[in-house]
Amino acid sequence: MDPIISIIMGSTSDLPVMEKAACFFDEMEVPFEINALSAHRTPEAVEQFARNAEKRGIKVIIAAAGMAAHLPGVIASMTTLPVIGVPIKASLDGMDALLAIVQMPPGIPVATVGINGSLNAAILALQMIATGDESLRQKLATYKEDLKSKITQANEELAGIKFKFKTN
Amino acid sequence: MDPIISIIMGSTSDLPVMEKAACFFDEMEVPFEINALSAHRTPEAVEQFARNAEKRGIKVIIAAAGMAAHLPGVIASMTTLPVIGVPIKASLDGMDALLAIVQMPPGIPVATVGINGSLNAAILALQMIATGDESLRQKLATYKEDLKSKITQANEELAGIKFKFKTN
Amino acid sequence: MDPIISIIMGSTSDLPVMEKAACFFDEMEVPFEINALSAHRTPEAVEQFARNAEKRGIKVIIAAAGMAAHLPGVIASMTTLPVIGVPIKASLDGMDALLAIVQMPPGIPVATVGINGSLNAAILALQMIATGDESLRQKLATYKEDLKSKITQANEELAGIKFKFKTN
Amino acid sequence: MDPIISIIMGSTSDLPVMEKAACFFDEMEVPFEINALSAHRTPEAVEQFARNAEKRGIKVIIAAAGMAAHLPGVIASMTTLPVIGVPIKASLDGMDALLAIVQMPPGIPVATVGINGSLNAAILALQMIATGDESLRQKLATYKEDLKSKITQANEELAGIKFKFKTN
Amino acid sequence: MDPIISIIMGSTSDLPVMEKAACFFDEMEVPFEINALSAHRTPEAVEQFARNAEKRGIKVIIAAAGMAAHLPGVIASMTTLPVIGVPIKASLDGMDALLAIVQMPPGIPVATVGINGSLNAAILALQMIATGDESLRQKLATYKEDLKSKITQANEELAGIKFKFKTN
Amino acid sequence: MDPIISIIMGSTSDLPVMEKAACFFDEMEVPFEINALSAHRTPEAVEQFARNAEKRGIKVIIAAAGMAAHLPGVIASMTTLPVIGVPIKASLDGMDALLAIVQMPPGIPVATVGINGSLNAAILALQMIATGDESLRQKLATYKEDLKSKITQANEELAGIKFKFKTN
Amino acid sequence: MDPIISIIMGSTSDLPVMEKAACFFDEMEVPFEINALSAHRTPEAVEQFARNAEKRGIKVIIAAAGMAAHLPGVIASMTTLPVIGVPIKASLDGMDALLAIVQMPPGIPVATVGINGSLNAAILALQMIATGDESLRQKLATYKEDLKSKITQANEELAGIKFKFKTN
Amino acid sequence: MDPIISIIMGSTSDLPVMEKAACFFDEMEVPFEINALSAHRTPEAVEQFARNAEKRGIKVIIAAAGMAAHLPGVIASMTTLPVIGVPIKASLDGMDALLAIVQMPPGIPVATVGINGSLNAAILALQMIATGDESLRQKLATYKEDLKSKITQANEELAGIKFKFKTN
Repeated sequence: MDPIISIIMGSTSDLPVMEKAACFFDEMEVPFEINALSAHRTPEAVEQFARNAEKRGIKVIIAAAGMAAHLPGVIASMTTLPVIGVPIKASLDGMDALLAIVQMPPGIPVATVGINGSLNAAILALQMIATGDESLRQKLATYKEDLKSKITQANEELAGIKFKFKTN
Repeated sequence: MDPIISIIMGSTSDLPVMEKAACFFDEMEVPFEINALSAHRTPEAVEQFARNAEKRGIKVIIAAAGMAAHLPGVIASMTTLPVIGVPIKASLDGMDALLAIVQMPPGIPVATVGINGSLNAAILALQMIATGDESLRQKLATYKEDLKSKITQANEELAGIKFKFKTN
Repeated sequence: MDPIISIIMGSTSDLPVMEKAACFFDEMEVPFEINALSAHRTPEAVEQFARNAEKRGIKVIIAAAGMAAHLPGVIASMTTLPVIGVPIKASLDGMDALLAIVQMPPGIPVATVGINGSLNAAILALQMIATGDESLRQKLATYKEDLKSKITQANEELAGIKFKFKTN
Repeated sequence: MDPIISIIMGSTSDLPVMEKAACFFDEMEVPFEINALSAHRTPEAVEQFARNAEKRGIKVIIAAAGMAAHLPGVIASMTTLPVIGVPIKASLDGMDALLAIVQMPPGIPVATVGINGSLNAAILALQMIATGDESLRQKLATYKEDLKSKITQANEELAGIKFKFKTN
Repeated sequence: MDPIISIIMGSTSDLPVMEKAACFFDEMEVPFEINALSAHRTPEAVEQFARNAEKRGIKVIIAAAGMAAHLPGVIASMTTLPVIGVPIKASLDGMDALLAIVQMPPGIPVATVGINGSLNAAILALQMIATGDESLRQKLATYKEDLKSKITQANEELAGIKFKFKTN
Repeated sequence: MDPIISIIMGSTSDLPVMEKAACFFDEMEVPFEINALSAHRTPEAVEQFARNAEKRGIKVIIAAAGMAAHLPGVIASMTTLPVIGVPIKASLDGMDALLAIVQMPPGIPVATVGINGSLNAAILALQMIATGDESLRQKLATYKEDLKSKITQANEELAGIKFKFKTN
Repeated sequence: MDPIISIIMGSTSDLPVMEKAACFFDEMEVPFEINALSAHRTPEAVEQFARNAEKRGIKVIIAAAGMAAHLPGVIASMTTLPVIGVPIKASLDGMDALLAIVQMPPGIPVATVGINGSLNAAILALQMIATGDESLRQKLATYKEDLKSKITQANEELAGIKFKFKTN
Repeated sequence: MDPIISIIMGSTSDLPVMEKAACFFDEMEVPFEINALSAHRTPEAVEQFARNAEKRGIKVIIAAAGMAAHLPGVIASMTTLPVIGVPIKASLDGMDALLAIVQMPPGIPVATVGINGSLNAAILALQMIATGDESLRQKLATYKEDLKSKITQANEELAGIKFKFKTN
C-alpha cells in the first residue's frame, strides 16, 4: 500500500527519537515512509521530495530537525501539504530547534509539536487526515480511551504504594 | 452555512491578534465561528464546547491564549479533532505562552504556530482540511502563488530604492 | 482519618519527586492522599476530583506536573480551595513547567513553589491550614527550630574540616 | 478592625501594581494593611515586622519585590505564616524577580504568583484563610461565579463583532 | 561595474536595518546589489539566486532574516561562497533569528554577526574579500583608524562634561 | 586632588547611565575621573590606561559596557586593581552584557553589579577602598542610615495613601 | 592570627565549590574563616554574623548560595563591608542564583562573580584589601605572572601535539 | 610551508573541540597553526599575535573561547584580518560564550559559528580565502558533493531499517 504519511529526518541520528512515530503508524496500520534528508546538505533532494510528495499520494509530512532546524520550514515553503515540525534536542536543550521551527513568517505555517515530541507528531498527522476520514476518527477515539485506561490503572497501583508511606 | 472551523480565544483582548485569522477565512470563503472561552474562568463552557465541536461539524479548532496558556491543551484533551495553538504575547515576550502550549505530554498533541501567528494558524487549518478536500487544496495553491507575486513586486520596487544609494 | 490534603501528580513518574511531600505529612501526622491524574489524558477524572474535593473535607490541593504543566491551573479553575503547583523538571530544566504553572491569568491563582519543590509545597500546605489551626501552627514552629539545629550542627562539623585546609 | 492580611512592597514604586490587591480586599471587606519595607535598605524594620506579624493577628503576608527580589524569602525565614510572593517587573521582563522568589531552598516556601500578579496574590490569600473560615469560602465561590458571568457577557458581545467580518 | 557583494533580505521591512550595510559599501566604493528574497515565499527565486551568484561574479553574500530565519542557511546550502547571516530583531528580541542562523549543522557554515548588525556584516564581507586583495586591505586599515579618531574625540568632549559634575 | 577612582565607559552613549556614579562620588567628595574608551575600537588606549592606572594613584576601576561587553575583562587582564563591571542594557535586555562581564575565567575576576547598576558600582568602589580607610567607612555607614530614613519616610506617606483605599 | 576574610556558604553542600577559595587563601597565607549559614534557615545567626563582622576585624565577606540565592544580599544589607557573591549551580544551570545575587536594588551592591566562580571571588577579595595594602598588591602581581607562565607552558606542549596532526 | 590560517584557543582544554578544525585543514592540505592564548591571562601574547598575524602571512584567524569569551573580539580589535569566533560550551550550555562573541559593537565584526562549531569555522575560513583563490573554490565544491553522497548513502541504509518496523 502506498504511504500517505512521510517522515523526514534531518539526520539519521534522529532515528531513535522518530522511531516512536514509526511504531505508532505501524500499530495504527497506516502506511508511511521514513527517510533522512538534510535541508542543508542535500537541498536538491529535499526540493524534489517536497514538490512531488502530494502527487505521490502523501497527505501529511512530518519533518524533524535539530539546531538551526530549517528542514520543516523549507519543505513547507515548497508544498501546500500540512507540515508537522519536530524540534530535536541536539544543543541548548532543543530551544534553538524549537524557535527555528515554530517562529515561521506569515504565509508558511509549520505545525510544531514539543521538543522530541515524535509520538505527538504522529497522532497529530492522523488527526489531520481524520478530518476527511470517518474510520480513522474512530480509531483515534479508541486510542484516546486506551490512554485513559493506562493512567487509571497506574493510579490504582499507586494506591498500594501510598499504604507503604502510611505504615512508616 | 455551518462553520467548519472554530476560533477560540482565552480572552476578548486577544481579538486584535486573531482578527487576521478571521479575515483570512472570510477571504477564502470558509465558514467559521469565533468565540472567547477561558480555560480557567469558564471551564464548563470550554468542556461543553470541546465535547460537542465534532458533532456540530467543526473539523479543526484554533485556540489562542497568553501567559500560562492552557486553553489549547485543555480542549485537545477533550476531543480528537486537531487543535491548533496560537501563543499570545502578553508577558515575557510570549515565551511563557509558547512553552505552555507546545510542550504537551505524549498522547495529546497541539499543533503550535509562532507567537501571535494567527494567520499561519488559519492557513494550517485549511491545509488540514484540504487533506480530504481537493478544491480547497487548489485554493491554497493559488494563495501561495499570490504570496510569491507580492514579494517579487516588492523586490522590484526595491531596485528603485537601491539606485538612490548609488547616487549618494 | 479522612485526608485533609490531596497530592495529585500528572504522571506516576513524578512519584520520586513527590514522595518527599508524602513523607513530610507522615512525619507531621497529617492525613493525606496521593493520586495520579492527568489533566490531558483523564480530564473527566480531574474534573470529578476537583469538584468534589472540598465536599470530601480536603482543605488544600498540591498538584505536580511537568512540561506544558496544566494540571494545577485546571484544578484551580474548578475549585475555590487553594491549589499549590509543583513544576516538575522533565524538559528545559523545568522552565516550561514553571512558566506554565505560575503565569496564571487574573482570577485563578496557583501558589507556585520552586522546580521539584515538593517539600516546600507540603510545608506551605500546612502553613495555609494553620491559619485556622493553632496546634498545627505550633508544630510548624517546632519544625522550623529543628531546621536551624541541623544547619548549626553542620556548621560545627565544617569547623573541623576547615582545620584540614590550614595544615596543608 | 485589625488587619488579617499584610501587603508589603519592596518599594513605594510597586504601589501601582499592588493597588489591585488592596482594592480587592476593600471590595471583599477584608481588613488589611499595606506598607513599604525594603529587605535591603531597612532590614531591621523587616525583621521586626516579620517576627511580630502573627502576634498582631496577621494570618497571611503578601510580599512584592522586583529585581533580586529577596523580600518574600527573607520574611518567610522569620515567620511560620504563609508568605505569598509577587514578582514585580522592573528589569529582564520580571524573570529575575520570579526566579529570586520562587526557587526557595527546602524548608522555607514562598507561594509565588505570576509576574505583577497582585490580584491573584490577593485571591490566594483569601483562599488560604478560607481553609478555616466557611463564610469566606462562600464569598470566594460568589466571586468566581461573577468572573464567569463577565466572560460570558464579553463573548456575547463578540458575537456581534463577528458578524461585522462576515458582511465584509 | 558588476556587483561583488550581494545583500539579500527576507523581507523589504528589513531595509531600515540593512541600509547601513549599503551605505558602507557606497562609502567604500565597492559595487554591490540589494534584493529582497524570502526563503519561504519565493524558494525558487532563492535557489536560482544562490546557484548563479558565483558565476555572476559575486564573492560574498550577506543574508538578513528575522524570526525562524532560514534564508542565510538555505543560501549557504546551495553555494560555496561565504554567507554572512544578519539576525533581524522582529520577535523575542531577535533571539529566535540568532539561534536559527548561527546554530548550523556541521558542513554548512553561516558567518553570523550580532542582532541587527548590518554594518558589521558589511565590514566582514570586505575583510573576506581583502584576504585576496591588498588594496582593499589598505582601505579597511584606514577605516579602522578613523573609528579610533572618532572615539578619541568623543572622549575629549567628555572631559568637558566631567568638569560640570565637579562644580556641582 | 588626584582621582582615586576611574570610571571607563565603552561608549559616550553610556553616559546617562554612568552619571549616577559620578554624582555619587561628587556627593561623597571622592576624587574621580570619567572617560570613554572602547575595548574594540581603541585597544591601545585601553592598554595604556590599564597598565598605568595603579601608578597614577587609581585604586578601583569601574568599567561599563554593553552587548559583547569586553571592556571590564580586558582591563582586568592588564592590572591587579579591582575592576567593577557594569553591564549596560543595549540589546537583549542587557543579558548579553551581563554574561559577557560576569562569566570570567578563573584567575581574572570582575566584580559585577546589576544591569545599568552604576550607583551600586560606585558604592562598591568606596566599600573596597574603605577596607583600608576608616574615615571612608564612617561615611558609608552614614550614607546607609540615610537610605533607611528615606524609605521609612516613604512608608509613612504610604500610610496616608492607604486610607484612601479604605474610604472607597 | 585573626581572619580578615570570611567565607559564608548557604549550605555545607557548597563546600566542594568553595574549597578553591579556601585553598587560595591558604596558598597566599591570608588568614580566613569558612562557615555555613543559611539566610533562610538561620536568619538570626546570619544577622549576628553580619553585624559583628567588621568589629571582629573582617575586611571582606564572600557569600555563596544557590537557587533563590539571598545570602549575599541579606548580609550586604546589614554591613558596609564589601560583599562578594558566588552564584552556586544547583538548578537552572545556576542562572537563578546569578540573577538573585547580581540584580541588587540601588544602594546595596553585591560584587558578583561567575557561576561557581569561587577562585575569582578569592582573588577579588585580596584585590579589594590590596587597595590599602602594598605588600598584598605585590603578592597579587606575582600570582598573575605565574598564571601567564602556566598557559605559556601549556601552549608549548600544544606545539608538540600539533605536529601529530601534521604527520597524519 | 607557512601557515595561512591560525587557530587560537582560550585554553588547552578547548583542544578536543578544535581538533576537528585542525583535522579538516590536514585533510584539505591547507597549512595552518594551532595555539593556546588566553585573552585574560596572557594579554601581551595575544596582542603580539594579533598585530603580527597579517605580516606572517596569516589570512584568517579562528578564535575559540568559552564563558565570557573575549578572545575573538580582542583579536578582531587589533587586526583587519577576518576573525571567526567559535563559542565553546563550558557553562550555561555555551549561551554565555555565544553572546559574548556574536554581539560585537559596530565596527569590529566577528564571524560567529554555532556552539562548539569548529568544523564549520574551518570550512568558513577556506570559503573566505577562496574568494581570491580559484583552486581552493574547486576543492570546497568537491567537499560539498562528498557531504551529499554520505547522507544519500545513510538514507539508503535507513530504507533497510524501515522494513524492520513494518514486520513488527
